This record gives sequence, C-alpha cells and structure tokens, in this order.
Amino acid sequence: MSLVPESKLRIAQQLDELGVDVIEAGFAAVSKGEFEAVRLIAQQGLRAEVASAGRGTKNDIDVVINSGAQTMSIIIPTSDLHIEQKLHKTRSQILELTEDCVTYAKSHGLKVDLLAEDATRSDFDYLLQVFQTAADCGVDRVTPCDTVGILSPDRCYDFFTKLTAEIKVPVGVHCHNDFGMAVANTVAGLGAGAQVAHGTINGLGERAGNAAIEEIVVTLHALYQKQLSIKTELLYGTSQLVSRLTGVNTQPNKAVVGENAFKHESGIHTQGVLANASTYEPFSPALVGRTRHISQGKHSGSHAIKADLASMGIKPTDEQFQEIFQRVKEFGDKGKNVMDADVLSIAENVMGLDGVKTIELIEMSFSGGDKTTAHASVRLCVTGKTVCGTAVGVGPVDAAINAVKDAIKETEAIELEQYNVKAITGGTDAIVEVMVNMRKGSRIATALGAHEDIVKASLDAVISCINVLITDYSNINSKT
Amino acid sequence: MSLVPESKLRIAQQLDELGVDVIEAGFAAVSKGEFEAVRLIAQQGLRAEVASAGRGTKNDIDVVINSGAQTMSIIIPTSDLHIEQKLHKTRSQILELTEDCVTYAKSHGLKVDLLAEDATRSDFDYLLQVFQTAADCGVDRVTPCDTVGILSPDRCYDFFTKLTAEIKVPVGVHCHNDFGMAVANTVAGLGAGAQVAHGTINGLGERAGNAAIEEIVVTLHALYQKQLSIKTELLYGTSQLVSRLTGVNTQPNKAVVGENAFKHESGIHTQGVLANASTYEPFSPALVGRTRHISQGKHSGSHAIKADLASMGIKPTDEQFQEIFQRVKEFGDKGKNVMDADVLSIAENVMGLDGVKTIELIEMSFSGGDKTTAHASVRLCVTGKTVCGTAVGVGPVDAAINAVKDAIKETEAIELEQYNVKAITGGTDAIVEVMVNMRKGSRIATALGAHEDIVKASLDAVISCINVLITDYSNINSKT
Repeated sequence: MSLVPESKLRIAQQLDELGVDVIEAGFAAVSKGEFEAVRLIAQQGLRAEVASAGRGTKNDIDVVINSGAQTMSIIIPTSDLHIEQKLHKTRSQILELTEDCVTYAKSHGLKVDLLAEDATRSDFDYLLQVFQTAADCGVDRVTPCDTVGILSPDRCYDFFTKLTAEIKVPVGVHCHNDFGMAVANTVAGLGAGAQVAHGTINGLGERAGNAAIEEIVVTLHALYQKQLSIKTELLYGTSQLVSRLTGVNTQPNKAVVGENAFKHESGIHTQGVLANASTYEPFSPALVGRTRHISQGKHSGSHAIKADLASMGIKPTDEQFQEIFQRVKEFGDKGKNVMDADVLSIAENVMGLDGVKTIELIEMSFSGGDKTTAHASVRLCVTGKTVCGTAVGVGPVDAAINAVKDAIKETEAIELEQYNVKAITGGTDAIVEVMVNMRKGSRIATALGAHEDIVKASLDAVISCINVLITDYSNINSKT
Repeated sequence: MSLVPESKLRIAQQLDELGVDVIEAGFAAVSKGEFEAVRLIAQQGLRAEVASAGRGTKNDIDVVINSGAQTMSIIIPTSDLHIEQKLHKTRSQILELTEDCVTYAKSHGLKVDLLAEDATRSDFDYLLQVFQTAADCGVDRVTPCDTVGILSPDRCYDFFTKLTAEIKVPVGVHCHNDFGMAVANTVAGLGAGAQVAHGTINGLGERAGNAAIEEIVVTLHALYQKQLSIKTELLYGTSQLVSRLTGVNTQPNKAVVGENAFKHESGIHTQGVLANASTYEPFSPALVGRTRHISQGKHSGSHAIKADLASMGIKPTDEQFQEIFQRVKEFGDKGKNVMDADVLSIAENVMGLDGVKTIELIEMSFSGGDKTTAHASVRLCVTGKTVCGTAVGVGPVDAAINAVKDAIKETEAIELEQYNVKAITGGTDAIVEVMVNMRKGSRIATALGAHEDIVKASLDAVISCINVLITDYSNINSKT
C-alpha cells in the first residue's frame, strides 16, 4: 500500500479528529515523498504527537530531525535471528547501537520510542538489557514488537507482566496479526500494564497487518468500560476514508467496520433484532457511527420481509404475504442475495401489480475507444410510452447510465448515490456483479445487476432501482 | 450469503478432504433448498460427521431427521434477554423444552449437540442447569455460544474452566467475531478443556462472522504444537473455493489466507526475508499451500529490486542500478503499487533500452449493446510493423482483449492467466484498476492498468504485460 503525501495528511487530520494520542506519520528516510509527508503532517500543529519511524542509524535519525517530527520510533532488532542473519551484528554491538542512537536522538530534542523488533522471539534477559540501556539514556517509551504475531493473549499477558515489573519507563504494545490474534494480544498487553497501544485503521500493515484500532477501541469501551479520548462515532467514517485513500477494502465480515458487521439475515436473528436489537448486537451500531441493516434471503423470517414491504408502501393481504414469503425464500435458495428490487418484483407479481412496472429497457447500444469519446443510446418504455436517450461518458458504463438519465430526465429527479462493482477474479468473461444505490427524495433503493458484460449489468441494476423508486405503491394498494 | 445446494456440496467435500471432524451442512428447516443441501451432503458417505442446525421445535427436529443428517445442533437460548424478549417464555419453560427436544431427537436416532444461544450473557448457574438437563437426557455434546462475541480470552478461559469442571459431556466452543477476538477466544476455550471448536472458512458468518478455521488451525499447529487431523496445505485452496462460491472475498490483510499474508514490501522486511525468510514469517507459506511474494514500492530495499531485475534477465551496471532504484522509489511516492511492468519500464528508460519496447497501442475502438454482439478492433505497432486485429466478446473488455490476441496471434503464444478488477466504489466515473497476470512458457508477468474507462484500463494492463513477456533482455544486455 502506498499513499501520496496529500492522502497521508488527510488521514492524519482524521486521526487527530478521532482523538488518537500519537500519529505515526511514516518512515521519513525511505524516500523523498515519505519525508515530505512526515514534514507536512508535523507542520499542521495537530493536537496529537507526530512520530516518524526509522532504523538505528545516524542517517535515519538525522532525516527524522529534519522532518520536524516530535518523536522518533527507533527500530532496533533484539532477536538473535534478526541481529545475526539480517544485520550481521552481535548482541553487544546492538547494545552499543541502542546507547548511541537514543543518546543522539535525545540530544537533538526528539522524544524517543524504542521499538525492539522481533522482541517476542528474543532472549528475555537480553531484551531487558536493551530496554534498560535505552532507559538509562533517557528514552521516553519502549515497545517490544511482536513482529511476526506469535503471541497468544495468555503469553502476551505474562510477557508484559514480567516486562512492566522491570522497566520503569512507559511500555507500548505492538502486535501483528499473522494468527488473527493481534487485537486480543493488544488488549491483554494493556491489561498487564502496557500504557500505549499501537494499531492501524482497518488493521492495515505488512502481511496480515497490525492490530485494528477500531476493534481495540470498542473492546476497551464496551467490554472493559474504559474511558477513552477516542470519538468512537468517527470510527466508521475514518475506516471508510482509509479504505478509499489506500484502495484496500475491508472484507464484509470485518469486525466493527465491515459491510455486514451490523447486518442481520437469518430468521432467528432478524426476529430477535426486531424485538430487541441487543439480542444480536453487542453494542449499538450508532456507537461507531453506523446504522443497522436487515437483509432478506433464504434465512429471512416473516417479520423482516413484512417490515421491508411496509417501508415500500406495499400492503399485501395475509394470503398474499404467505405467497411472497415463500417466493423470497425460493429466490434465496437459488443462491442469490435478495435486494429491494427482488422483494418488490416478487410482491408485484403475487399481488398482480405487474402492469405498474414503470420502466423497461427496449434496446441499448454503446461505442468507444481510446481516440474517441464513449457514447451510448437507449430506448426505454416508460409507463407504456417509448422514450430515447443518448449521452457521452468517461467509458461505456458511464455513457449508458447517462443515456438512461437523459431518457427519463423530464420524468423524475433521481440520483445515483453509489455504484459498486464486486471485484472480478478469474477472466474477462466472468460474471460481473454491479450493485447500485439510488435516491429519490428521502427514499433509497438498492438493486443488483449481473452479466458478463459490465455495461449490461450496470444498466439492469440502474433500471431495477429506478423502478423501485418511482412507483407509488401506497396509491395502487388502496385502489386494489 | 446464500449458496445453492450444489455449491454447498462442493464445499462439504472440500471440508471433508481438509480433514474436519464435523460438517455443519445447514439449517434444514429454513427452506426447501437448504433441506435439499443437507440431504445431498448427508448422502455422500463422507468421513466427517454431517450435522444440521435447527430450533428447539418438534417441526425443526423432524425436518433434520428426514434430511438424513447424523447430528442435530439444537439451538436453544439461555439468556433472559433471549428467553423473554425473543421467545416470550420463562426459564422453566426452556428447561422443559430442553428435556423434550433432546429426548425426542435422541429417541429418533440423532446425535445431539445442544447449542445454548447467548450462553455468555446467561446466568451461569441456570446455564449449568440447562446443560445438566440435556446431559441427563443423553445429549452427546453441549456448546455454549458466544452469540454476540462479548468474551475476551481471559474471560473465555475462566468460563470454560468453570463449565468443564461441572459438565461431564464433551463441550464445544462457538465464538463470534464482533470484537475481532473470536480466534483467540476459541483457542482459550480449548485450552480450558473444550473439546470441539466451531469455526468457518474465512471467518464467514452472521455480522462480523465466526472464528476462522484457518487461523485456529495454524495457531494450534504453529504456536501450540498440537497434532491435528487437518491437512494444513489445503487451507488456502479451501479458502479460495469458499470465496469463489460465496462471492465473499477476504481482505488483503486477512491472516493466513489474505492476498498479502505472505507478501513483503518494506525495505527492512524484504532484506530480512531474502537473508532468512523466518525473520518476517512466523511459519512457511507452504504450510498452508501458499508461496511468498516480494513486491516493490517506495519502501523497497535495493536487495529486492536487484532480485526482481535479475529474474527478467536484466543486468544493469552499479551506476544504472542506483538510478533505477531511485526512480522506483519516486514512482512509489506517487502512491502507486509498483508492478513488474513498471520496474521494467524504468529499467528500460535508464539503460537506454527504450527502443526495444515491442508492442504499442496505436488505436482501439469498440461497440456493443444488449441486442448486438460486442466487438472491438485494435491497431498495434509490433516491433515497428503495424498490425490490426478484430474480435467479438461477451462484452467490450473481452472483445478488446481478444482483438489484441488476434493482432499478435502469429507472433507469440501468450496466455491470459488471471484478470482481476479491484472493487469499484463510489461512482461510474471512478478510476478502475485492472490487474492482469499473463504467461509465456514458464515466464509470468503482472501489470496494472488504471483508467476511468474499464476497456482502456484493461488493454493498457494487457499490453504492458505482453511487453514484459516478449522481450529478450538477456540478449540485449549482452550487446550493450
């Protein structure tokens, strides 16, 4: 993952607003751009302390001094594996290096956090010696790094209990997630006396990443009732910002910030949530700036589907509802996620409202190239009347959707809020799944389109969505 | 997430091959398709025990009996919140229900695992009463569910220590991941005497999902030296299969099975890994059926870039190498991931090999629609000679790439191995990032294309890749 300095700055400002105490702005010596990013962030006068990481070399320390960062995280390995095989040095050379680096950095006005690399695979007594040396030279914090994530929470607790009994400067906890236990280890380390937790938004970092800040924060808040300076309601927005700027999306089942973290599908679950949300939620989604979502599928209970239809203004009789309920389940059995547009089309069919479907695609064509502007045209049937539209766009998808907008422009004011394409893996003829989110006034609808041709998939989704939005069912219900 | 019965069967066969002891095949009573899936899986004569979940009702038990599953996971809530607010029952009614259900299911030949829903928010003495009642009726296993994931490893350890001291039938551990601690909790539960771990591949499940099997397995194997019946080398393939069939991808920084879990970028890390991989890997990627990947970026060290160039047959002088190294870092500073094609083009430029670039796109156009076959044509310059190609495809992207293949068909035998598009979020005019993986004989190259138009992005990536593959640099180096 790489970020330009402007993106790093935007994230730093957001972290500051979120309320973190220290921002690790980058590895200043690694490149000009990274140096620039650290310098830019250090100049902002943020509330948070701005740190920059570097190796234990005079050059790296000088670069951090010049960057204007307040703090340097000096990385020095302490395991024999790293000392011997990576640095080709000896333990006593590393002790000397620690003394030299901390003394030099402190004498130039930096705060220093000594990061002992691979500390958890180091000889413990030797690690203590390194930390004690750093403490004697005036280090501000020491942090043993679980560089390859080999701690488990019980071992982490013991490790930090022993360490904090010996070392009198504040100790940090820095966990990697190679076994999926970084957050639990971080919480265990804090429980054993560590005072600073290192983490990243969305758990980003080398390999399987670092401990996820959002998970540490909600754990401390909701399970340990700790008062933190973090504005928890900004966690989701921060996660979204970081995803957008890094291009690294979280998986749907990511804790706290994943798309599905507050989504309920199975019948048992939705029935419980509709009665009392805390049956299937450990804390309110509002705590982290989110909302609950109840989705339909083969596990759907009748409670959830009834609630969904009501929100669209559709009021089936009991008999009609039983039929709709069965068909939604059959639809889910075919392996599909059931969207608003699908529930709607089933309900329409069962209730004989088919005739009211407002927009249908009659025909669409597009063309483009690298030396020509992409353009598309569509012919639609809108409540029985044929209308045409044509438009240009940045590519064929954009052009085709613009053409639909052009065709219906005088009918309705509808906005495309989100256009998402699931990652395509495997080949150029794979099925592309497009999900769109559209709004008309305060009404929002989602729909899915799937086709080998991304243009066709996109148009199908958009037209389904518009149909959900522009039909006034409450009116139709009262007539039937 | 929904799966058709055939996909469920394929996953069950894979889990059986992987070596799990019990396969939870589905919630048979939820729909006809789900019943069909359980029946299909139960008929296969798999080595693993096949179970089906259901509520504590005569109907759900009857459906499981009819499905042919060996085991039923009977879900009965034990917290007052669930008993009162969801089921509108009393504690004593739940005790009776437990007795009735277990007795009925056992008398019809089922093995029974009693899943106490929301057990970790239940009155502990009452939970013991429920489990003891089930044990008296001949239950085979009991499993307290941490339904909303509120345990932490230390609390989980205490919970299972107390529970296993009292209950004499085997106890299972079933953890949800709302705080990101499901795996650590599961491992703690096993350490405290639980004998069965519930988990899912990729940590899928309601909301933030369940404990990830692949993380539990490698933790027990690598950190606790447990002998398991699991074929660990099948873990990655199993994860990929489940991603493909469910359509739910893991995030790049997912432990064990994420795209980046064995990828090294930063200079410190790649230098260490090239000296001895265990410096930055807790276990060999081969353990889980994977390979290591060293990528380039602004954090790249000189060691990694040198190794990369050598693999392409390019031998710069020391001075040329310094220049290449600087430019790769500058490229990374622009926020880009550095692909083979980028390193190559920088090296070509520095070493004056620009003239050898073999293929250039002169012009491309495409058209399509919903009533017409998509087609595209390209004009390329191949080693100074203009060639044209034209082809049809399932959509404009497929057609354009087929047209390139058509144009160069007599020159080279090159295959497109993988075509990936990063998820597109936000709008139809967002930048689309396409990554392709192509092979010529034993040589593989990757390249990235980025453009608002997915067709243009795809072609750029494909042409960059072909250029990496068809130029014989070792030959050119020896001449200069």
